[in-house]
Amino acid sequence: MNEMIENLLSHRSIRKFKSKKLNEQQIEMIISSAQHASTSSYMMAYSIIGVTDENKKAELAEITGQSYVKDNGHFLIFCADLNRVTVKANEEEYEAMLDNLENSEHFLVSAIDAALAAQNAAVAAESIGLGICYIGSVRNNIAKVDELLDLPKHVIPLFGMAIGYPAHHPEPKPRLPIDAVYFENSYKHHEEALDRFDDRIAKYYEKRSENNRTDTWTDQMKRRFQNTIRMEVTDHVQNKGFNKK
Amino acid sequence: MNEMIENLLSHRSIRKFKSKKLNEQQIEMIISSAQHASTSSYMMAYSIIGVTDENKKAELAEITGQSYVKDNGHFLIFCADLNRVTVKANEEEYEAMLDNLENSEHFLVSAIDAALAAQNAAVAAESIGLGICYIGSVRNNIAKVDELLDLPKHVIPLFGMAIGYPAHHPEPKPRLPIDAVYFENSYKHHEEALDRFDDRIAKYYEKRSENNRTDTWTDQMKRRFQNTIRMEVTDHVQNKGFNKK
Repeated sequence: MNEMIENLLSHRSIRKFKSKKLNEQQIEMIISSAQHASTSSYMMAYSIIGVTDENKKAELAEITGQSYVKDNGHFLIFCADLNRVTVKANEEEYEAMLDNLENSEHFLVSAIDAALAAQNAAVAAESIGLGICYIGSVRNNIAKVDELLDLPKHVIPLFGMAIGYPAHHPEPKPRLPIDAVYFENSYKHHEEALDRFDDRIAKYYEKRSENNRTDTWTDQMKRRFQNTIRMEVTDHVQNKGFNKK
Repeated sequence: MNEMIENLLSHRSIRKFKSKKLNEQQIEMIISSAQHASTSSYMMAYSIIGVTDENKKAELAEITGQSYVKDNGHFLIFCADLNRVTVKANEEEYEAMLDNLENSEHFLVSAIDAALAAQNAAVAAESIGLGICYIGSVRNNIAKVDELLDLPKHVIPLFGMAIGYPAHHPEPKPRLPIDAVYFENSYKHHEEALDRFDDRIAKYYEKRSENNRTDTWTDQMKRRFQNTIRMEVTDHVQNKGFNKK
């Protein structure tokens, strides 16, 4: 196993950072790594906003309920961006592009492009000793975050990423057994693998150093999905011209 | 710059592979790397199908129109999977989960989770000298691919990934200038950066060794978006219980 793969396998989210900021060279290297990820048909359908304004960071920390959105070495927000491909279109051309801009296919394309770029950014940051945490809770109030970043039509915020020098060393969190995730040639139902994982997770939650509790993965997921969250993402996304048809 | 980042920056898609197959250890290492990517609220909302059946590979090559879907060292299909979280739910619990299973929020979550995992797989594969190419064209006939893989409700195919030993050495494709992608604190309009990129791309297409032509990035995108593609992704996704509300 090489060092690259060791890095990937030892990932854990960092939620406490030292106050030291990233320098410009580090930020450029992380963004450049993001840009070199694969992209669907060369669309590069994403934008990245680096948030340095302390007031904006404080507001984002409040929306997300996560203090490390404010207290970190740098904070990025990854956006789906289908605006860029329209910039040079005249009115007639733009009208002819709308069916694609607004369909679920290109909603998927832009979300996937943004995520591929983001994961390259994460890997690059971790390779130089930094820690990261993805922040899906920017979607707690997606309209407010969108406004805060002045995003035009056909651009929406998807998730944030806090980056910085780790100030704690959490244990990596167990992953599903491979036979619950990877199947050959066709989908396999995998209740038995989930049972095995639930046993393992029950022990993990019982024994871990912080926030120990009695729980299993399947129970946690059942609870989570029974409380509706972020139902207003749908409307916001459509208002911005995504995922309408 | 370390080796990891050099690897990220030198990525290019590989579309010609030697006939040598990946061994089991390589495949496990790639899948394990995928699994260790970040995941939204521990949902791990994806599955990966490794396609080895030659008939299925031939069918997928026909659907995608890409011969290297058949001729490679290994072929993966990444799926959004919200089925797994329902497996242990009784009927009443399942009913209570439906609003979340079917909303755009969790459509996004599952697509993003799958993409983060996939990019880790790509990085892992490239770190051991393999090449990869993402295959979005599995969505050319998403219903057929779904059927071919026996995907249950709440699981859909998103994209494929051909992996293998490179049999050609294409030049890396230029990326947008950083000031067209990365902005501080708020979205910046960036026409001038696109003009610069169009100039660069015109020269790239004129000079590159294969398929040289006269084109710019913005023209290419305008053409692409004026021909509707994959409009039936919307219906298929909704039929499988995603993105309905």
